[in-house]
Amino acid sequence: MEDTVDHLAHERSKAQFNVEEMKIIWAGSLHALQVSDRIAKLVASDPGFGKENRAVLSRKDLFKSALKKAAYVWKRINELGLSEEETSWLRFYVDELAYDYVHWGMFVPAIKGSATEEQQNKWLPLANTMQIIGTYAQTELGHGSNVRGLETTATFDPVTDEFIIHSPTLTSSKWWPGGLGKVATHAVVYAQLITDGKEYGVNGFLVQIRSLDDHFPLPGITVGDIGMKFGSGAFNSMDNGVLRFDRVRIPRNQMLMRVSKVTREGKYVESNIPKQIIYGAMVYVRQTIVADASIALSRAVCIATRYSAVRRQFGSPQNDQNGNGIETQVIDYKTQQSRLFPLLASAYAFRFVGEWLKWLYTDLIQKLEGNDFSTLPEVHACTAGLKSLTTSAAADGIEESRKLCGGHGYLSSSGLPELYATFVPACTYEGDNVVLLLQVSRFLMKTISQLQSGKKPTGTTAYIGHVEHLIQCGCNVKKAEDWLNLCVILEAFEARAIRLLVACAENLTKFANPLQGFSELSPDLVEAAVAHCQVIVVSKFIEKLQQNIQGIGVKQLLETLCYIYSLNLIHKHLGDFLSTRSITPKQASLASDQLRSLYAKVRPNAIALVDAFNYTDHFLGSVLGSYDGNVYPKLYEEAWKDPLNESVVPDGYHENIRPVLKQQLQNARL
Amino acid sequence: MEDTVDHLAHERSKAQFNVEEMKIIWAGSLHALQVSDRIAKLVASDPGFGKENRAVLSRKDLFKSALKKAAYVWKRINELGLSEEETSWLRFYVDELAYDYVHWGMFVPAIKGSATEEQQNKWLPLANTMQIIGTYAQTELGHGSNVRGLETTATFDPVTDEFIIHSPTLTSSKWWPGGLGKVATHAVVYAQLITDGKEYGVNGFLVQIRSLDDHFPLPGITVGDIGMKFGSGAFNSMDNGVLRFDRVRIPRNQMLMRVSKVTREGKYVESNIPKQIIYGAMVYVRQTIVADASIALSRAVCIATRYSAVRRQFGSPQNDQNGNGIETQVIDYKTQQSRLFPLLASAYAFRFVGEWLKWLYTDLIQKLEGNDFSTLPEVHACTAGLKSLTTSAAADGIEESRKLCGGHGYLSSSGLPELYATFVPACTYEGDNVVLLLQVSRFLMKTISQLQSGKKPTGTTAYIGHVEHLIQCGCNVKKAEDWLNLCVILEAFEARAIRLLVACAENLTKFANPLQGFSELSPDLVEAAVAHCQVIVVSKFIEKLQQNIQGIGVKQLLETLCYIYSLNLIHKHLGDFLSTRSITPKQASLASDQLRSLYAKVRPNAIALVDAFNYTDHFLGSVLGSYDGNVYPKLYEEAWKDPLNESVVPDGYHENIRPVLKQQLQNARL
Repeated sequence: MEDTVDHLAHERSKAQFNVEEMKIIWAGSLHALQVSDRIAKLVASDPGFGKENRAVLSRKDLFKSALKKAAYVWKRINELGLSEEETSWLRFYVDELAYDYVHWGMFVPAIKGSATEEQQNKWLPLANTMQIIGTYAQTELGHGSNVRGLETTATFDPVTDEFIIHSPTLTSSKWWPGGLGKVATHAVVYAQLITDGKEYGVNGFLVQIRSLDDHFPLPGITVGDIGMKFGSGAFNSMDNGVLRFDRVRIPRNQMLMRVSKVTREGKYVESNIPKQIIYGAMVYVRQTIVADASIALSRAVCIATRYSAVRRQFGSPQNDQNGNGIETQVIDYKTQQSRLFPLLASAYAFRFVGEWLKWLYTDLIQKLEGNDFSTLPEVHACTAGLKSLTTSAAADGIEESRKLCGGHGYLSSSGLPELYATFVPACTYEGDNVVLLLQVSRFLMKTISQLQSGKKPTGTTAYIGHVEHLIQCGCNVKKAEDWLNLCVILEAFEARAIRLLVACAENLTKFANPLQGFSELSPDLVEAAVAHCQVIVVSKFIEKLQQNIQGIGVKQLLETLCYIYSLNLIHKHLGDFLSTRSITPKQASLASDQLRSLYAKVRPNAIALVDAFNYTDHFLGSVLGSYDGNVYPKLYEEAWKDPLNESVVPDGYHENIRPVLKQQLQNARL
Repeated sequence: MEDTVDHLAHERSKAQFNVEEMKIIWAGSLHALQVSDRIAKLVASDPGFGKENRAVLSRKDLFKSALKKAAYVWKRINELGLSEEETSWLRFYVDELAYDYVHWGMFVPAIKGSATEEQQNKWLPLANTMQIIGTYAQTELGHGSNVRGLETTATFDPVTDEFIIHSPTLTSSKWWPGGLGKVATHAVVYAQLITDGKEYGVNGFLVQIRSLDDHFPLPGITVGDIGMKFGSGAFNSMDNGVLRFDRVRIPRNQMLMRVSKVTREGKYVESNIPKQIIYGAMVYVRQTIVADASIALSRAVCIATRYSAVRRQFGSPQNDQNGNGIETQVIDYKTQQSRLFPLLASAYAFRFVGEWLKWLYTDLIQKLEGNDFSTLPEVHACTAGLKSLTTSAAADGIEESRKLCGGHGYLSSSGLPELYATFVPACTYEGDNVVLLLQVSRFLMKTISQLQSGKKPTGTTAYIGHVEHLIQCGCNVKKAEDWLNLCVILEAFEARAIRLLVACAENLTKFANPLQGFSELSPDLVEAAVAHCQVIVVSKFIEKLQQNIQGIGVKQLLETLCYIYSLNLIHKHLGDFLSTRSITPKQASLASDQLRSLYAKVRPNAIALVDAFNYTDHFLGSVLGSYDGNVYPKLYEEAWKDPLNESVVPDGYHENIRPVLKQQLQNARL
């Protein structure tokens, strides 16, 4: 019976907005909500997708169970005849990393993006039916961020019409590709193309690495798993791998030749396909990572918010219905609110900027197809910066959410340790977050230097065109309520960003050598890039509020969250705002006052705001975050499932505990 | 042969200071260096203490191997006849969490602190020889921070002269104690004492929980492991446990009666031992945690610094000896330096403040024994605050160090994931870091309010006595070099702290209800408490520099680190410094300029500065941090040890991979 009681019902009854309408806003559309809801329930109700025990398994057993689940996913997709949309939701809710993640997410897109039509006709049918399983082999043991530094070579042999793929050094070993270690039969391998004695830079090659008969590596290929990674589940269900080539030969037509090719005679020829399409692929991947960031953060926030409403500590004891003293709900502490609610607001902010990025990508592709490359640098900088900003904030936010759950957040059954270990590599892969911000700052410095020549910045940099106004303007806030003005907030963010950018640009001119100047000032440039990216997030949140938003109280709550997101950032980066004189110390103090009022507005709506994410208990995978708030019985129950509890007296008692207690260690075999 | 080459020799040759003298400074004394060095080598050379494979083991196997190692530790301690000092170094370098950690670190000290002499005479000989193994059972499933809220009861039965220990609710289950789950035979249990129908608050009771004959739980006792925790090794080698009592009877004399007791007649009597000694124990534990923080952070920094010197990415290609283009060492990037070197400086700062805290504890105990309780509140606040400050910074710093290693930091073989997972609970246990800062701020508000009555603050709060000067004073820095003045820096920190504190005190007066005011302003109070704690760290670093420091260049380097620590904090908390007008925006910008010069000073000394920690490769447990810098061959070698690489074709191929590839899923059993 206990299970059917909703311990958070009272919290839910306090909500001042229409939760169902908010679910649509979060999902993006009624259609998206309905499809995702249906598939989420399908996954949650199928024992084949159970997530139990992941944390306690040995590496081998964990990997084996992931193989089984991946096969089951593929089986169910085919049996149910799921659409592409439904399939992607299914993979999303199954929420376990295995080779199929890389096959569908990187191998197939690489073929689509870099192979000729003829090549696609040959390989895509095999890949789409998983008759071959592929991976994406770019990074090497000694080479990550700097793709141009890759050492693997692909040397054309005109005698046999083949490429010779070779790993000349230990550091050229391919390292990290998911699915490579034990599963993939094929790989898109990036290597330095050499033909006719000349190097032509990094190109992609489709290389078979394992036999389709017995799964053994093909001759000349050394391949294996690179070992355990952060966490006990997380990426350990994935076989990230190492791969070395000892002069492996592949037919010439397995070079991916959409953008450039090598002829039968060994001539390197560039096609008329613009190289910029490669950036299109980068923009695609990074916008999906921004979407992932909002999801990972929202999961953590959902768990922490629900548990903060369940958990009680200290406080002037009120009496409950039975007249017993009860402690204060943790969520009522201002210290808890001031850490938790900005994260809740960030989850929404990142959701909306991610949604907008998805649109931006579609828009970009249309432009690229029409040979319009004008927006590419801005779009590229924007996605790179937002990938960096949102993943750093989400990773930190997940850990903060875990700490907000006190000691129990440290238990695997809280779901939070694995959520962190799974998400945090997003700060490093697909562009290290600091390296990306340096790229953004380089673009911004260029934008500023071009102002003089009259080039008008567009898109997310449009505000830079108003540099004269933004350098001089002053913030008009005189009392706390004045901060409840989206224009005032946006202008403060724009002023701070542009003033930091202009200061960097001016300091750069002091260096005779621009490269050295950029290097010396790089920490400042990174901070200015962050300020610019925050302008984007704030402005996209504001744009979202200007859309037609249905449902009682929905728009009001979103506005509150937008204010919290922004004012909390002002507080966090106050040094920037004050040193650029974008606001005054007095205004900063008024912003803090206003934040406190905003937290009070969110408090009764907190549980409903995380309910709007519409996550099933299966997807959340957290006892602390369970929908009904019945935390303690579930924690207790979960504990007994640990393998250590299979026997009352533990394995090893006779060999290693009893000899200690009985003072018989001299004779013990240790 | 490769193994004998020191790939970092060139880096080491650049050091501008005497590394051996710095090792003595880090160790605290020549004696400490010599003992620890000897034991570190002993541990590293004994295969019984090998740390390999921890990450890949299943929970059961990991636990079993920890049991074996704990027994081996005990065996070696006895065989070698180690002194107490040597024993503690041995446990330190073995670096694996098991029940002995709690037995020696909490159970034995609890008996020493809370048992009468007679009780100690009975129990300590058993505990000291490990004929009984104990744990410390305080926290409950529903009760962590708030000790007074514990629900477990100990009711005196005058008929039988026994206490009845009982768990009245599910949430009263003891939860978390290390060693409890599967090993401990005894526990110090904290419970609400009830005698003669009245409650007398929480007291400690010594309760046997398992049979010394067959290790089965005694009647009325339910005990087990609480399941997996963060990480794959970390605390998972420890059996943190759950414990319930169903009216378990223990003799009256197993109440720990040093401070208060219950007589044969059931009368509750307080002894003349001051209650304050309990705070003494808290101060002891927290000062050891500060020491742990500097060690954990220094390990991470050592790994990240060495690997940053090995790793190369991008950069204008110079040529190596063979005329090949080589990339820039990552440690030469200013973005890397601006993140890494402040962590290096923090490791030293925390080391010195920890050393001072150790002295403070000794001093406190002497005072308490002389019935002088005057310094207790200040010492208590100081240790609570420093525990909070250093553990938060160290935990964040370990993750930052991991990210500074790029993708490879995510591998278990980097040692960093486990270092983080093992250390981060220090932010929560022994006082949640935010709760502790609130306690500190409460003490500081009291200190300020007592100024008016003429009470002079002492010790770490002495500067508060100079409030009038510090409220008005202005910082005199006019050029970047002016920041190289320890007095100027300290005054800026003191000014910022006191101005934040005074602002809080003034804002508190605006609330009619002081409790409500404290609650509303708690986020500000936390920030003010942090500012105060930073004053302590900076001032203790400065005091260290005023000691007699031997060795060429040692003092200069430590000064440089002290400046980096302080100026980086100014940059990080710039909002505080500017809003309190402790410094101007111009001075902030000069501080940033000065920081860049300071990083350049550290750069050639970076490797030697982490060598000074004198950590063995065994203790570091990191391929990336290995002393000789021979990273890539070791990473490669390490990978092949993963169990997944035991077979070329993985377990599960025939059941779960082949049916996918061969399109035979319909018939597969999944």
